[in-house]
Amino acid sequence: MVTTVRLAVIPGDGIGPEVVGEALKALDAATSGTDVRFERTPFSLGAARYLETGDTLTDDDLEAIKGHDAILLGAVGGVPGDPRLAGANIERGLLLKLRFELDHYVNLRPSILYPGVASPLAEPGDVDFVVVREGTEGPYVGNGGAIRVGTPAEVANEVSVNTAYGVERVVRYAFAAASARPKKKLTLVHKTNVLVFAGSLWKRLVDEVAAEYPDVAVDYLHVDAATIFLVTDPARFDVIVTDNLFGDILTDLAGAISGGIGLAASGNINPDGRFPSMFEPVHGSAPDIAGKGIADPSAAILSVALLLDHLGHADAADRVRGAVAADVAERGDVARTTSEIGDAIAARIGATVGAH
Amino acid sequence: MVTTVRLAVIPGDGIGPEVVGEALKALDAATSGTDVRFERTPFSLGAARYLETGDTLTDDDLEAIKGHDAILLGAVGGVPGDPRLAGANIERGLLLKLRFELDHYVNLRPSILYPGVASPLAEPGDVDFVVVREGTEGPYVGNGGAIRVGTPAEVANEVSVNTAYGVERVVRYAFAAASARPKKKLTLVHKTNVLVFAGSLWKRLVDEVAAEYPDVAVDYLHVDAATIFLVTDPARFDVIVTDNLFGDILTDLAGAISGGIGLAASGNINPDGRFPSMFEPVHGSAPDIAGKGIADPSAAILSVALLLDHLGHADAADRVRGAVAADVAERGDVARTTSEIGDAIAARIGATVGAH
Ligand SMILES: CC(C)[C@H](C(=O)O)[C@@H](O)C(=O)O
Ligand SMILES: CC(C)[C@H](C(=O)O)[C@@H](O)C(=O)O
Repeated sequence: MVTTVRLAVIPGDGIGPEVVGEALKALDAATSGTDVRFERTPFSLGAARYLETGDTLTDDDLEAIKGHDAILLGAVGGVPGDPRLAGANIERGLLLKLRFELDHYVNLRPSILYPGVASPLAEPGDVDFVVVREGTEGPYVGNGGAIRVGTPAEVANEVSVNTAYGVERVVRYAFAAASARPKKKLTLVHKTNVLVFAGSLWKRLVDEVAAEYPDVAVDYLHVDAATIFLVTDPARFDVIVTDNLFGDILTDLAGAISGGIGLAASGNINPDGRFPSMFEPVHGSAPDIAGKGIADPSAAILSVALLLDHLGHADAADRVRGAVAADVAERGDVARTTSEIGDAIAARIGATVGAH
Repeated sequence: MVTTVRLAVIPGDGIGPEVVGEALKALDAATSGTDVRFERTPFSLGAARYLETGDTLTDDDLEAIKGHDAILLGAVGGVPGDPRLAGANIERGLLLKLRFELDHYVNLRPSILYPGVASPLAEPGDVDFVVVREGTEGPYVGNGGAIRVGTPAEVANEVSVNTAYGVERVVRYAFAAASARPKKKLTLVHKTNVLVFAGSLWKRLVDEVAAEYPDVAVDYLHVDAATIFLVTDPARFDVIVTDNLFGDILTDLAGAISGGIGLAASGNINPDGRFPSMFEPVHGSAPDIAGKGIADPSAAILSVALLLDHLGHADAADRVRGAVAADVAERGDVARTTSEIGDAIAARIGATVGAH
């Protein structure tokens, strides 16, 4: 029986379309000859669309996207400082709007230092952890405001909203993930000594869910201390669970120590399955190198692996990851184009068909 | 004419008293034979005091401290998880209370990678920057709350409060600092694309003050990207200005990449001089190694250098920094006790008397 997956594809801006092209090659290679096929719908969204039409994400766009099983996104965002984008906030109006409207309450960001990949750390050790970042609450809710704007008496507030409902579900996801991994360790990262209300809530729910997972070792770190350990001892981490803003910060740092943001993949997941989950590289649209064909598509391709995992095709996902790992192991210093890298990885994926 | 500085000394908990003892040796060595003398008043504050008396910081303590010209603090905080401290929040009730009540709106945290000091980075480059962290606003104001606590319907909010008054003064301090440094570069770190209200305020005030400093090059980074550059290219930074929480996170990371938190010094400064400024190592009370005489007093000693700078004794400050630099350059792998390190540095400071 052939399954058809309706995939919404948002190439986006800058290098987004370039890396998405290669990610789709990888997807084809990983699923050719299997019983799953991907029916793709392209969506033109991002800074370019905004500049053309003035729209960021219309209700119709959102409804159309909701009619899909999953989303692959390249990157969105225009040239920093472009005066025509001054009034727009593509991040809030498009990327965060998708995450919030589609209830992507788990933002999954694995960090693996593949053999052969240079790390900026002198002694990286064994980097293999995953950050489970909350995706629908915290300081990202957009619940702020300002008075007397533009005057010396301006006051600007930002409210971080945290609910037991929202924290418990992401904490449960993180415990289940930790329990399924060999190290079985979960580290809560927060700033409970300063953000005492939000911190107490997170701490309480981690303690409560921990009681159901006696096999998982639980640890706590303040966010400042966590940045130190990511640099000095990344091997101490297995599953990190944290709020939206801390997760944003920690995952860029995690990308930096594990081979660079060019390898960092992410999944914005709605585990209930009520809405399509969205897979995207952690990197941005990089307008400075757009159109040159030199962007590294690896993070986008690894995001396809997360997509395949999510859809239950673990074998295909492993083949994609294996092909990327093999490719990066042999990269050396040779400069290749985006499509040369994509072709090489797709060929490696193809070569493993039937090997599993 | 001999100046007398009234110095409040808060040794605190854990390794606090040990490192403060060595810091005071360095202070003696740096000022002996000069026309400044320090009259010290010890204050017993911290977890130990709380456990004895139930007090964290009384109004009388605060008034007495206000009667001083400066404060030297070791570290405060009890053993994590000590049930007797469950109700107390030494951080909020003592450390942050001092910073807020004494209007320490500049939290100054230099990062220098001294020659000979091992960095966890494979290619650290030339690390020499200073973080100017806002100290009296942002998510640290304690302006949060929770409803239905302990139930599945709990909501916990944290409010970040940012004012033009508070942001402008710290931004002005940062520009003045940048203008006085050879590189003359200022990087604002925030998350303007998500925290749009607070972000716009910071951006506006940086732009406004920048107009008065045409000699200073101005740069902006999102906080997540800033963590990447701290690891991959720390030499790009000169003066970083940022909010209270981002500054907390970035300075621990900065400590990690520039020789460890054992060398990270800080000043909580009230530039108006209305209240005494407070100097403290960035590290905590480290109860696990307390009483063993093995804590590295270097960060506390470097905090004395910041104290001397603040009081206008730049020569003495330079001698302290020079002595620490010389000591760390020759450290190698020999384990020394806290007081051996302190004695060695004090001796080096003494040897430079009159050299300036
Ligand atoms: C672009 C921005 C809104 C986004 C975020 O802060 O979540 C990005 O940094 C990320 O991590 O995906
Ligand atoms: C102890 C804690 C409240 C404090 C802070 O968050 O400011 C510490 O981490 C620091 O950086 O001095």
